[in-house]
Amino acid sequence: MSKQHVVETEVRVRYAETDAQGMVYYSNYFVWFEVGRMAYLREIGLEYADLEQEGIGFVIADASCKYLSPAHFDEVLTIRTWVEDVKEKSFGFSYEIVNKETGNLLAKGRTVQVFINLRSGKAISIPPRVNALLRR
Amino acid sequence: MSKQHVVETEVRVRYAETDAQGMVYYSNYFVWFEVGRMAYLREIGLEYADLEQEGIGFVIADASCKYLSPAHFDEVLTIRTWVEDVKEKSFGFSYEIVNKETGNLLAKGRTVQVFINLRSGKAISIPPRVNALLRR
Amino acid sequence: MSKQHVVETEVRVRYAETDAQGMVYYSNYFVWFEVGRMAYLREIGLEYADLEQEGIGFVIADASCKYLSPAHFDEVLTIRTWVEDVKEKSFGFSYEIVNKETGNLLAKGRTVQVFINLRSGKAISIPPRVNALLRR
Amino acid sequence: MSKQHVVETEVRVRYAETDAQGMVYYSNYFVWFEVGRMAYLREIGLEYADLEQEGIGFVIADASCKYLSPAHFDEVLTIRTWVEDVKEKSFGFSYEIVNKETGNLLAKGRTVQVFINLRSGKAISIPPRVNALLRR
Repeated sequence: MSKQHVVETEVRVRYAETDAQGMVYYSNYFVWFEVGRMAYLREIGLEYADLEQEGIGFVIADASCKYLSPAHFDEVLTIRTWVEDVKEKSFGFSYEIVNKETGNLLAKGRTVQVFINLRSGKAISIPPRVNALLRR
Repeated sequence: MSKQHVVETEVRVRYAETDAQGMVYYSNYFVWFEVGRMAYLREIGLEYADLEQEGIGFVIADASCKYLSPAHFDEVLTIRTWVEDVKEKSFGFSYEIVNKETGNLLAKGRTVQVFINLRSGKAISIPPRVNALLRR
Repeated sequence: MSKQHVVETEVRVRYAETDAQGMVYYSNYFVWFEVGRMAYLREIGLEYADLEQEGIGFVIADASCKYLSPAHFDEVLTIRTWVEDVKEKSFGFSYEIVNKETGNLLAKGRTVQVFINLRSGKAISIPPRVNALLRR
Repeated sequence: MSKQHVVETEVRVRYAETDAQGMVYYSNYFVWFEVGRMAYLREIGLEYADLEQEGIGFVIADASCKYLSPAHFDEVLTIRTWVEDVKEKSFGFSYEIVNKETGNLLAKGRTVQVFINLRSGKAISIPPRVNALLRR
């Protein structure tokens, strides 16, 4: 995994994402991970909305985040996303959230996606075209 | 409107719903309005999930809220919900959010719902059974 | 108000913002209004985070939205924001949410902000510098 | 871990918590974990709001969730919460989310909390009274 492809995208912290401690509420990092993985898929030519139109999607089977330093309102964050491992029916995304201005690493995370048939909800093998793009 | 049927339900403020001002973020009152209207429908024998299974639903066409006094983490709130007016394809819900312990009125709101065919997304006349229950 | 200053900013719809009807959940438009008004303030040289550091902020006293056409996952939306009226302690923002690609108007909204002393929570007169910028 | 104290609390799935796949969006399980841990603390006589008034709080250092089966709108869920391990400055909560009606296990999760001085933001040793209650 020494030469993985990393996609960077940015978000600006919304007031809606903060909580009464004055920092970002912890579940919102998982929303940013979504922003990261959708940007990743778009970048490799695999729009998630297009997949859904083919009746294919994925569900999250596992998600985790380590919080290293808090994010605050109005900060611009860089989300770095890469593919960790591609299996028959699932694959992993890893993420880093970095304060764009300071370069501080704020959080590290991981999600595991399982491909499903959207109609049946059943897990399916990753389609060859998708597999090839993810392994690029 | 002197004899409207009012349904009360409760929520406890989640930390997730607060923001960096130490009070509840303003959009979350609209989520509580949803909790109120679903409780209302359940109470009159009209489960929204059942409606959806029949291919019927409603969308919000208009929503408003006046914020009178802030809500804070862990406070228990009473949501009071009633039907305002029933038209051919739409009807209105009104809401009050009250601090259960102090009785303070925190917010007043209103939403207008338009019935739709979930498949086509088109507005439809309110089904007679639903209309009768809403006008009860 | 014929020559009001309009600030445009963009958001891409997140999956997190959709609901089981396959469109965006109605409360999220108010989060986008926040994105719009913060962009507006930034654009006129009035960072909200800076205001807060001076012990000044504002709370939302009133919010409303008319929903004209649904927004969906991954669509890029333009948020148009302008100042409606500036009073002694409060002022109004108006918003339009437009699908960037199609130009369709999806929603129109309004919020009223009341300036407060963040320590006391009490309403205060809009500081002259802020007032001047808002009336620009 | 044979005799841990488990606290159960309930939530009803809100439409706001669903997404366009027709099931609950994955980050919302972490909000329910918050509901679970606040209920746990309340039950052992340790209101989080009271802690904050003493200038003490905790931040989440680590969070994870395994998703076993989806949750849907209007389902009533039981959140089971227990303390996993108590260290000098941090402790772990474990969670299970169960469909109340069917008994199906939907998700399992874990969060690590680090106690902080709310003013300085620095990690502190868990106060003896709190420690005793968590180890009860």
